[in-house]
Amino acid sequence: MSTAIISKQELLEHWLGHRKLTRQTIEKFPEEELFHYKVEGMRTFADMLKELLALAVPGLQEIVDNKSGELNENLSYSTKAQLLQAWDEATPILIDLFNKIPEERFAEEFNLFGQYKSPVVHSILYFIDNEIHHRGQGFVYLRMLGIQPPFFWERG
Amino acid sequence: MSTAIISKQELLEHWLGHRKLTRQTIEKFPEEELFHYKVEGMRTFADMLKELLALAVPGLQEIVDNKSGELNENLSYSTKAQLLQAWDEATPILIDLFNKIPEERFAEEFNLFGQYKSPVVHSILYFIDNEIHHRGQGFVYLRMLGIQPPFFWERG
Repeated sequence: MSTAIISKQELLEHWLGHRKLTRQTIEKFPEEELFHYKVEGMRTFADMLKELLALAVPGLQEIVDNKSGELNENLSYSTKAQLLQAWDEATPILIDLFNKIPEERFAEEFNLFGQYKSPVVHSILYFIDNEIHHRGQGFVYLRMLGIQPPFFWERG
Repeated sequence: MSTAIISKQELLEHWLGHRKLTRQTIEKFPEEELFHYKVEGMRTFADMLKELLALAVPGLQEIVDNKSGELNENLSYSTKAQLLQAWDEATPILIDLFNKIPEERFAEEFNLFGQYKSPVVHSILYFIDNEIHHRGQGFVYLRMLGIQPPFFWERG
């Protein structure tokens, strides 16, 4: 068989680097704007973060358990401290769950949240891509608020 | 050795799906706003696209040639048709170059544009992530212009 282009551990580290940058982005928001500022037709950055939190750990849990559940984005965090705490608490759980998925399962189809049927690796790439997408939108909100976002390439 | 979590071909297809979505995003912009609309402190979506064009094919070419060059984002496209044409012309070249990189080289360090030293797979993930990041920003510009962006999950 051919050489792997990226290992499971490298993909996890790539994701964790993005999560650090997203955390830095949350920190840059003033509390009021985090929960109330938005562009017409869009959500607040806090609501986007609730989506990210609703996807990552619950999604990985479903994959590990091999059992579809329901997507619930209605998370009750209402302060920046709560959101940061939820983000920080999710990270070690995410690492633990990710590590529990055997390499062989990445190519297997799974019906995520009972509605998104795709290979496990696609669901995981979706979690990462969706985080990058919404964080990019958070960067625009920060610029509109006159705040310099973190550097995109810094993941430390 | 362990099972690969994603094949080289799958990573390419993942990128091509994102490129289709970015193309759809370009198409949604009115020509005037594509080149002139921006948020204070940010670039126009056209300038972000020029960066993406300056990275992908030239970056892959350097990797294939194993020879660092200089990054040149000053591309002279000044109409939407030119940008779309450049995007479309880049795609088959990108596919050809990507296919020329042996799996074994993805883990090798390469000094991209003579300044970004990292494993080849990280440079390629950066090209994809950076496209997602800036396209997410383009989505905000579209919303600010009262235009509905494409659906993030549609890559067809």
